[in-house]
Amino acid sequence: MKSREIHLTAYPKGEPTKDNFEMAEIDIREPGEGEVRVVNKWLSVDPYMRGRMSGIRTYIDPFALGAAMDGGAVGQVESSNHPDFAPGDWVMSMHGWREAYVTNGKGLQKLDTTHIAPEDYLGIAGLTGMTAYVGIKRCIDLKAGETLWMSAGAGAVGSAGIQFAKAMGCKVVATAGGPDKVDYCLSIGADAAVDYKATDNLAKSVREAIGGGVDGYFENVGGTHWTAAMEVLKPKGRIAACGMIQRYNDATAQPLPDNLANIVAKSLRIQGFIVSDHFDMMPDFIADLGQWMAAGKVRPRNTVKEGIANMPAAFLGLFRGENTGKMLVKL
Amino acid sequence: MKSREIHLTAYPKGEPTKDNFEMAEIDIREPGEGEVRVVNKWLSVDPYMRGRMSGIRTYIDPFALGAAMDGGAVGQVESSNHPDFAPGDWVMSMHGWREAYVTNGKGLQKLDTTHIAPEDYLGIAGLTGMTAYVGIKRCIDLKAGETLWMSAGAGAVGSAGIQFAKAMGCKVVATAGGPDKVDYCLSIGADAAVDYKATDNLAKSVREAIGGGVDGYFENVGGTHWTAAMEVLKPKGRIAACGMIQRYNDATAQPLPDNLANIVAKSLRIQGFIVSDHFDMMPDFIADLGQWMAAGKVRPRNTVKEGIANMPAAFLGLFRGENTGKMLVKL
Repeated sequence: MKSREIHLTAYPKGEPTKDNFEMAEIDIREPGEGEVRVVNKWLSVDPYMRGRMSGIRTYIDPFALGAAMDGGAVGQVESSNHPDFAPGDWVMSMHGWREAYVTNGKGLQKLDTTHIAPEDYLGIAGLTGMTAYVGIKRCIDLKAGETLWMSAGAGAVGSAGIQFAKAMGCKVVATAGGPDKVDYCLSIGADAAVDYKATDNLAKSVREAIGGGVDGYFENVGGTHWTAAMEVLKPKGRIAACGMIQRYNDATAQPLPDNLANIVAKSLRIQGFIVSDHFDMMPDFIADLGQWMAAGKVRPRNTVKEGIANMPAAFLGLFRGENTGKMLVKL
Repeated sequence: MKSREIHLTAYPKGEPTKDNFEMAEIDIREPGEGEVRVVNKWLSVDPYMRGRMSGIRTYIDPFALGAAMDGGAVGQVESSNHPDFAPGDWVMSMHGWREAYVTNGKGLQKLDTTHIAPEDYLGIAGLTGMTAYVGIKRCIDLKAGETLWMSAGAGAVGSAGIQFAKAMGCKVVATAGGPDKVDYCLSIGADAAVDYKATDNLAKSVREAIGGGVDGYFENVGGTHWTAAMEVLKPKGRIAACGMIQRYNDATAQPLPDNLANIVAKSLRIQGFIVSDHFDMMPDFIADLGQWMAAGKVRPRNTVKEGIANMPAAFLGLFRGENTGKMLVKL
């Protein structure tokens, strides 16, 4: 079997271009004892991959030059000598940027496609959605009828979280930067949305938009958003702290008005988290998401390009805002 | 039966004096049906009582002028027509500043004095100790072998917390203001103690004192202590936020360096709390404390004055630092 794959030719400085990639065709052998051969159907491109093109090790290794890159991929088992996998099984792997591969099954996740389309395991049913789910269900422990403030509501995690909280019977106020993003938050079900760039009193604007305080705050931003959340949260309010992107590029700690005494006065609870510490929730997540999608309460938002040759174009499109929701390539 | 009691004669401005108090003697009647007559044995004086002498309602009513004041008291039932109380029973009430009283039993707590001396229910076995216990056991969920940073370690809650954490088999680093308070923290079992007034890098000093990071931080102070805690806590560290006294008198929010991204990066958990939301832990607290005291692992620290006539002097002594640990009056 032949398989085409994408190689990185050089570590780009600044924004990558098509010249940083090349396509190669290789032979894929038959699977040996205990092995399985998979044909990919959907490939993921993600902003974090830019970091792996820098040639520097961060929390993950850089891509090797002149070899197939990797990333999220969903495919079907073509032939198998592995007891856990049969031909036709849908599987997810990190063997992306290629049409097919042989593996011993390590890291291969079999997918239940009863209620969830295979490609959505790369988006709303993958780590993106799981992050929103863990934050809302475990860290905030949001109950039906309660109110959630979702920051970065038009982002991948934020837009999943808005839909999940609505499906759970909650009220949602979203914040986002700019009128288009605010409209997007409303279009996916937020009861109210605030353009944080258009207010000089975020706490007041959020309160007015949703008509009072909030029970939960999903923190993706930090800084001024955090300070406002201290004011907007009701007594016994909870924060899921998933990211504080406003501060990531600061070389030194910026000053923040200290209104932390609200934590004591209102008995607030704050939980920082990383999704990989909560994989025990995966079965619950998949079960809930399947029900929500079957009921039409949660809809994936994907932008799809076609063919392995379009992988570099899809990736580069991320940085030009060409995607609404998750960017995917269909093979 | 005669009972002497202390009245407030005027709302003092600034530091109260003995002239603000007078003693009166009244007749205490026999208890009627469903009533109980109690003779007080121990009376509590507490700094919070100063607030009740201002004549202004805060979270609690001011003392009435020309009437018996109230406050924590421990006594014995003298006679009873109430099914739940028998003569000789030890009871705790808010009917302090007097020698005896008649009550219908509402708010009267029967005391188990098997392992705990009656007077200690006004201190380490009362709300002070309970606050330390709730913070360490529930909010921080500190495990044997873990390390706790106790702020305000020479305070009432702090000194209870240091002893509890040591009794639980934990390592403790305390912070306090001044060398005498540091020595006191060490004398009650802290493995290390730091004078926060003598360092310009609190995080570094705490780390060096205890030889690394901490698993739990007990927040009584806020401000610069909070900022340092963000640095000193280990991954998955927990904060019990009990008070932030450093900020209570600030009219406007002071700036704080924003290093809150540590909450995400280290998956920290923070729980603000008020002890009255956790009274379900009272039986566990009394059981643990009884064992710790019987084993000599926890020792009450009381300063005792004698006789109802000394109540004003005991109270005024609080503001001159005349007490080590809890100030009590024995009748």
